[in-house]
Amino acid sequence: MLERIRIVLIGTSHPGNIGGVARAMHNMGLADLALVAPRCEVLTQDSISRASGADHLLHQVRVHTTLEEAVADCTLAVGASARSRTLPWPMLSPRELADRLPAECKPEGARIALVFGREDSGLTNAELQRCHAHVHIPTNADFSSLNLAAAVQVLAYECRMAWLGQVDTPPAAAVDEEELATHAEIEHYFEHLERTLIDIDFHDPAQPRQLMARLRRLYLRARPERMEINILRGILSATDKAAGNPRR
Amino acid sequence: MLERIRIVLIGTSHPGNIGGVARAMHNMGLADLALVAPRCEVLTQDSISRASGADHLLHQVRVHTTLEEAVADCTLAVGASARSRTLPWPMLSPRELADRLPAECKPEGARIALVFGREDSGLTNAELQRCHAHVHIPTNADFSSLNLAAAVQVLAYECRMAWLGQVDTPPAAAVDEEELATHAEIEHYFEHLERTLIDIDFHDPAQPRQLMARLRRLYLRARPERMEINILRGILSATDKAAGNPRR
Repeated sequence: MLERIRIVLIGTSHPGNIGGVARAMHNMGLADLALVAPRCEVLTQDSISRASGADHLLHQVRVHTTLEEAVADCTLAVGASARSRTLPWPMLSPRELADRLPAECKPEGARIALVFGREDSGLTNAELQRCHAHVHIPTNADFSSLNLAAAVQVLAYECRMAWLGQVDTPPAAAVDEEELATHAEIEHYFEHLERTLIDIDFHDPAQPRQLMARLRRLYLRARPERMEINILRGILSATDKAAGNPRR
Repeated sequence: MLERIRIVLIGTSHPGNIGGVARAMHNMGLADLALVAPRCEVLTQDSISRASGADHLLHQVRVHTTLEEAVADCTLAVGASARSRTLPWPMLSPRELADRLPAECKPEGARIALVFGREDSGLTNAELQRCHAHVHIPTNADFSSLNLAAAVQVLAYECRMAWLGQVDTPPAAAVDEEELATHAEIEHYFEHLERTLIDIDFHDPAQPRQLMARLRRLYLRARPERMEINILRGILSATDKAAGNPRR
């Protein structure tokens, strides 16, 4: 899916931004970069430095003179727009765009263009009207102009999230390889804890004040692993010994 | 909600990145920026140029010497991590983090820190272990190192999306009335815990075997309330007394 998504930059004037876009794209698994009438050189010290290892995208870049040429083979072109224009156009949020991408990318020959405008003035009305839809990244109303590479970063991230949602949903939640303690193991811990707390004069069963209930709630909330319960019991045994309490 | 979210940058070495972070934050409506031991000047031509109109954030920035200081008043600290480490920690995707934010930001006094590491090496294990959870931005496995401002951009965007989702959905029923412990309160507990474990001969700092890391992970996962931390510290004081260890 990601190989069917093209980033198109129109009239970019800072090589550093092109480099930043290349890095953002490669980070998110996109590789198809097209420039329309750039107002700067593509391969400069600045662009290569900002690309930070993604400069093969700068070498592969295709440069066009018009937007039409850059998106000629595309089945969907979406223009990044700061705000709705005089003539309202279908407007998507980045997330709505992401929701549509899997279906849009599916057909044989599908090719999606995400089109970004100039650093200073964005896309013209004529350019926006060549797009099927517009996408607006929600921003602070008082400070709405995103850096070009930052705007590409946000949309590329949404593309990747949409792709990952497709790929199956492998252990994004991962982590929990460790075995959880059983109910019985946890109960043995609570019994041991209560005896020790009595022995060190912290807990008076005649005046319980919900102490054990509060400790239960805390530890159960954490869903302890077996290894963790072993550590906690080890601490209790060391406490018993240090306090000179009878061996259990 | 957004005013309760702090961006913390540790050991940043390029002023331009700090400027880029300020712009990304202001674009998304975040304003609380803290630096820990920066390895460069904050106000330079480069940082001001990259901030591109958001340089008031650079003037307001607070500079700390340690992470603890920067997040002392925080009720939740989430560290940006490139990958899971030797000891797995609760790991969130940016979207899972966003899903949790409205509830996390709701309580009186809530303060959330999103912590980002050095450009070259990220966060250390010790720094990651001071966080309740880690967040991993999904990236191309072959090219996983995001530019710092780009990483902040993605998480700030998810924060804004979460906030926008809230703005028109009526406030859900209050989650939890009890007050969470602050980062500083939890750190004081861990310091006390470590001293006590050494005194009762359970812990040998010369052979730590990840003991403190495992205990940190357990307790941080439970998101302790202030009252619970008070109980746990009371237990440690009673242990110290029963074991005949010096009063702290």
